[in-house]
Amino acid sequence: MPNVLITGASRGLGLELVKSPDLGEVCSDNTNVVFVEMDISSEESILQSVETVKSLIPVNGLDILINNAGVHSWTNGDVSEMSDLADQLRINVTGTHNVIKSYLPLLQAGNMKKVINISSPWGSTTSARSFVYAPCPAYKISKAALNSLTVQYALSYEANRFIFLCVSPGWLRTDMGGNDGDLSAEEGANAVIDIVSSADQDSNGLFKNICVPGYEQYNGKEIAW
Amino acid sequence: MPNVLITGASRGLGLELVKSPDLGEVCSDNTNVVFVEMDISSEESILQSVETVKSLIPVNGLDILINNAGVHSWTNGDVSEMSDLADQLRINVTGTHNVIKSYLPLLQAGNMKKVINISSPWGSTTSARSFVYAPCPAYKISKAALNSLTVQYALSYEANRFIFLCVSPGWLRTDMGGNDGDLSAEEGANAVIDIVSSADQDSNGLFKNICVPGYEQYNGKEIAW
Repeated sequence: MPNVLITGASRGLGLELVKSPDLGEVCSDNTNVVFVEMDISSEESILQSVETVKSLIPVNGLDILINNAGVHSWTNGDVSEMSDLADQLRINVTGTHNVIKSYLPLLQAGNMKKVINISSPWGSTTSARSFVYAPCPAYKISKAALNSLTVQYALSYEANRFIFLCVSPGWLRTDMGGNDGDLSAEEGANAVIDIVSSADQDSNGLFKNICVPGYEQYNGKEIAW
Repeated sequence: MPNVLITGASRGLGLELVKSPDLGEVCSDNTNVVFVEMDISSEESILQSVETVKSLIPVNGLDILINNAGVHSWTNGDVSEMSDLADQLRINVTGTHNVIKSYLPLLQAGNMKKVINISSPWGSTTSARSFVYAPCPAYKISKAALNSLTVQYALSYEANRFIFLCVSPGWLRTDMGGNDGDLSAEEGANAVIDIVSSADQDSNGLFKNICVPGYEQYNGKEIAW
């Protein structure tokens, strides 16, 4: 039975990942699902959560870490009006780095060594023109940086058989995605779990789109950086 | 005679850009070169510098802004040891954003509207594996984010005829580049000036390598994000 930590699990995709059938099998006994408090913008809070998790899994390490926690905000007007860049970088990038580095010893002790960073095609610099309609430049920049962070980890820990990858969960009907999303949070969560389950050493360092039949935009392929 | 602002001009590439023959022609009369103090990590300092520059060019706006200021540091050990990420993002990304947004009205009043952000191939997520030998993950991530920032600006101000581009100045023999660089600071500066001079609307949003005959790695082509 793998040990899985999902950040940002109090709502949206993170909560749905906890509830998803596949992870549900893992955690069919409710006592196996434990809520651990963590604020990824606080190193102290992250380290406290590590101590809690350690006490919950004293023997086996952590198998899978899903970095789903993050923030999103909009910019009114042109890019020069962007006032949320520092915050988005601090939470989505440095915060995720602090989570990964703090859980690395527990992951090292685990069997799977999978770290999934929830990203977005909006973070693709190559495809930026396609997403110009979405007025959230700070979020896009933070996801580009998160993607780069993921690749840096992937290369650094390849020899240790870690698997780091970025996953785009699709546009979901959640607090972050709003009501017009393409998919329910459950559909998105199941599609993300498919990627997590099938991820192997060849997936290390990739940026994967979810695969949802019937949706051209969710083709399961790699997304350009 | 265009008005040019170069950040980080107290040494290295920035200083050499000020001294380069092409910019030298522009500023052949020494009174036309003015040192303006600016700490790009401080919004207050940036805004003070804007007031100074405004008083120097009361009628015409700013034609070219070269964002050359930035920091670089190394990480000892694996990526999890990286302790400089927050600082590199704060200075290289948010700092550059703050400079651009603060000078935007002056650039709007200028004739050329060129903004050049000095970047690095090490910021290419696509080519990250080629640069795994260089233990500066935070710098790489910050340059990936700077590239994304550049493209966000490029798309936002395209209709206003701005030209935003990223330029890789090559590996130079400067304080940042050390003694083993491929090119002198002067060669790098001249190659950057070539790109700045020839940049037109078609260059908006690109990441350009310098062109230096005899160096395969400086082929003047676009660099992948």
